[in-house]
Amino acid sequence: MINIHNYDNEALELHRRDGGKLSVNSNSKLETREDLSRAYTPGVAAVCSEIKKVNDESGNEQATREYTLKRNTVAIVSDGSAILGLGNLGAHASIPVMEGKAAILKEFAGVDAFPICIDTQDTEEIIKIVKNIAPVFGGINLEDIAAPKCFAIEERLRSELSIPVMHDDQWGAATVALAAIINSLKLADKKKEDVVVVLSGVGAAGVATARLLISYGVKNLIYVDSKGVINEDRGDLNKEKLELLNASQIKNKSGGIAEALVGADVFIGLSKPGVVTGEMVKSMNEKPIIFALANPAPEIMPELAHVAGAYIVATGRSDYPNQINNSSFFPGFWRGVLDAQYAGTYKGIDNNLFIEVAKNIASYTESSEGGLSAERILPDMLDKNVATMVAKSFK
Amino acid sequence: MINIHNYDNEALELHRRDGGKLSVNSNSKLETREDLSRAYTPGVAAVCSEIKKVNDESGNEQATREYTLKRNTVAIVSDGSAILGLGNLGAHASIPVMEGKAAILKEFAGVDAFPICIDTQDTEEIIKIVKNIAPVFGGINLEDIAAPKCFAIEERLRSELSIPVMHDDQWGAATVALAAIINSLKLADKKKEDVVVVLSGVGAAGVATARLLISYGVKNLIYVDSKGVINEDRGDLNKEKLELLNASQIKNKSGGIAEALVGADVFIGLSKPGVVTGEMVKSMNEKPIIFALANPAPEIMPELAHVAGAYIVATGRSDYPNQINNSSFFPGFWRGVLDAQYAGTYKGIDNNLFIEVAKNIASYTESSEGGLSAERILPDMLDKNVATMVAKSFK
Repeated sequence: MINIHNYDNEALELHRRDGGKLSVNSNSKLETREDLSRAYTPGVAAVCSEIKKVNDESGNEQATREYTLKRNTVAIVSDGSAILGLGNLGAHASIPVMEGKAAILKEFAGVDAFPICIDTQDTEEIIKIVKNIAPVFGGINLEDIAAPKCFAIEERLRSELSIPVMHDDQWGAATVALAAIINSLKLADKKKEDVVVVLSGVGAAGVATARLLISYGVKNLIYVDSKGVINEDRGDLNKEKLELLNASQIKNKSGGIAEALVGADVFIGLSKPGVVTGEMVKSMNEKPIIFALANPAPEIMPELAHVAGAYIVATGRSDYPNQINNSSFFPGFWRGVLDAQYAGTYKGIDNNLFIEVAKNIASYTESSEGGLSAERILPDMLDKNVATMVAKSFK
Repeated sequence: MINIHNYDNEALELHRRDGGKLSVNSNSKLETREDLSRAYTPGVAAVCSEIKKVNDESGNEQATREYTLKRNTVAIVSDGSAILGLGNLGAHASIPVMEGKAAILKEFAGVDAFPICIDTQDTEEIIKIVKNIAPVFGGINLEDIAAPKCFAIEERLRSELSIPVMHDDQWGAATVALAAIINSLKLADKKKEDVVVVLSGVGAAGVATARLLISYGVKNLIYVDSKGVINEDRGDLNKEKLELLNASQIKNKSGGIAEALVGADVFIGLSKPGVVTGEMVKSMNEKPIIFALANPAPEIMPELAHVAGAYIVATGRSDYPNQINNSSFFPGFWRGVLDAQYAGTYKGIDNNLFIEVAKNIASYTESSEGGLSAERILPDMLDKNVATMVAKSFK
C-alpha cells in the first residue's frame, strides 16, 4: 500500500474560504460618467439595436458573438444525476464540480464558463431549459448527467440548437482514452485492426469510447456491463449496447470480465473499483495494456497489474503515471470551437473531429518534454500547450 | 438646445473590442497537481457530499452558500420583452444591458452576477426556467420584462423560490424615486399627506412607484396612462390600475396630463418624451416638483421646466443635475441581501424594506459632499458609498 494524501479537508477549507471557485468580473473599470455611458445607458442601446438588426438580416447569431460574452462563454450544464463517482446527488451538490470545470477552462484555455445546475432530472424539461438559456452561450458542455438519458439530451440539443453541444463525460473520456490507445498500440507494436479490446462499463463514457474506437478502426471489442459480457443471447440490451455489439466482430463471447480477458490485448475499465485481479491480467495476450479508469479507486491497482505482467497501466489518478483525464481534452476543445465560430470557420462536431484531436494529443506526447514511453503515454495534464494544440484540430 | 454627446460609436467599439463586458475567473490559480486536487478531483467529491448531507439535514440551502458561488452570485434574468426604451427586441438584443447590470454590480458592490437571457416570452415557461436554474444563485434580479406579465412572474417566483426575487425596473425605479420625493418635499416644505402627485405611465416602474408612495403615506395620486387619467368611469383597467385607483383619495379626475397637473404638487413621468409643456408646469401648485424620467428624452426638457417655474427638476439622464437611476439602488440592495442570507439574518423583501432604503438614500444625500439642494436631491451616482449605505438597510 502506498500512502495516499487525502485532500478532503483542504478542499472543504478552500471552498469555504472563497465561497466557491468562480467570480464574474467587469472587463473594464466603471469609474466615470463616460465609462457608464459607454458600457450602460445611453450607449448600450445602440449595441442592443445593432445586434437585433444584424441578426435579423443575417439569419444567424454572429452579431451576438461580435458584441457580447457569447463570443467566449460556455455553459457547464448538469442535473447532478451522475456526479463523479458519487451518483445522483442533485443540482446543489453538483455545483462544486461544475465550478471546477469552469475554473479549469479559464486557467487552461482562457474560456469563460458558468455553471448551470438544473433542479429537475426530467429529460424533456432539461432540453427545454438549455435551449431557452442558450443565447448568452457559445457552447453547451453537458456534465455528470446519467446514462442513458445523456445520449438523448445531447442528440436532441445538437439537432435543435445552433451552438455546439458536447457531453464531456462521453467525449472527453473517449477522446483521451483513444489518444492513450494510439500511443499504447504504437509502443506495444500492435495493430488496431487486430487487437481485442475488453471494455468494462457501458455507461456514458463507455459507449462513447466504444463508438470512437470503432470509428478509429478497432474491429474486436468485447463489452462487459453489470450483468456480464454483452452477447447476442442477452435480451436486455438498450439501443446503444445493441449498436455496439453489431459493430464488433466478436458477438458470441459469454461469462464475465475474467472470461472476456483471456487472450485480450487491451482492458479499458470505466466501471468499478477492484473488479480485475492479477490472475486475469496474466490470462491476457502478451504485453497487456490496462486502462483502469474507475474513480476514485481503479479496477486494479497499478502495482498489482505490473506484478502480473502488465506492459502499460493507466488510471484516472494524478498520483500514478499515465493519468487519463478529460482535462487534457475539454479546455482545448472549447477554445477551438469558440475561435472557429467567431472566425466563421466552424464546421460542426463529429467522430472524425474527436479522432483528429486524439491523434494530435498522441503525437504531441512524443514531441513534448519526457517523450513517449510505457510510463508516459499522454502529455502532462498541467502542460498548458495541450489546450493550444487540441484547439488547432479545428483549423 | 445643448449639445449632447452621442455614445453610440464608442459603445459599439467597446463591446466589439472586448466581446461584451464580462469575464468569469477562477478565484485561485490552478498550476500544480495539488491545486487541481483541492479545486477538482479528488478533493471536490468531499465538498459535493458535504453539501448534500448538510442541506438534507437542515432542510435549507445554507451549505450551498457555504461552499459555492451561490454565496455571492445573482442572476440577471430577462426575456428582452421591454429593453430600455427600445421595446421588445428579444433575448439576444437584451444581453448588452444584462451584462451592463452585472458589470455595475461587481464594480459598485462586489457582487458576482451573470446574465440569463431567456429565449421564450411565455410567462409559465419563464417561471419554470428561473426556478430550475436557481441552485447556483443567491438571488434573481428580473430586468426589462414587459408589464403586466412582470408582476405575475415576480409574484410567483417570490412565493415558489427560497431565494429573493426582485424586478429592478419596478423596485429600483420606485425606491430611488421615493428617495428623491422625500428630499424634494423636505426642500419645498410640503407634507406627504397633503401633496397631489401626478404619475404619468402606469407600467412596471409606474405601478411600483405608486405602490411605494402609497405605502410611504402619500394620499392623493392621479394616474395617467396612454388613454388619459385613470378614474372610476374607465372600463378598461387591469387589476394593478384598479388597486392603485382604490388606494388614492382622488378618484374622479378626468382628461389628460394637462387636466391632471392643474394645482398638482408633483409630476412623476415614466412615460414618453415631450408630453409635458411649460404651460402645464405653470398650472401646477407653487414650487412644482418635476421628475421627467422617460428615456432617452424626458417628458419635458429641464431648461423648459425651469423657465416655466419648476422648483425641482429631475431626469433619468447623466448630463443634467438630479439623475434618478436605479444604479443607486440595485448594487447595494443585492450586497445587503446576499450578506444577510449568508449571515442567516435575512428577513425577506417587502415595501417597508424599500422605504427604509429610500430613507437611507435620502438622508445620505445631505450628509455627503455637496449636501442637499434643489440641484442635488440625490447622492452622486458614482459615489460607491451609496451601495454600502443601502446594504446597511438589511442590518
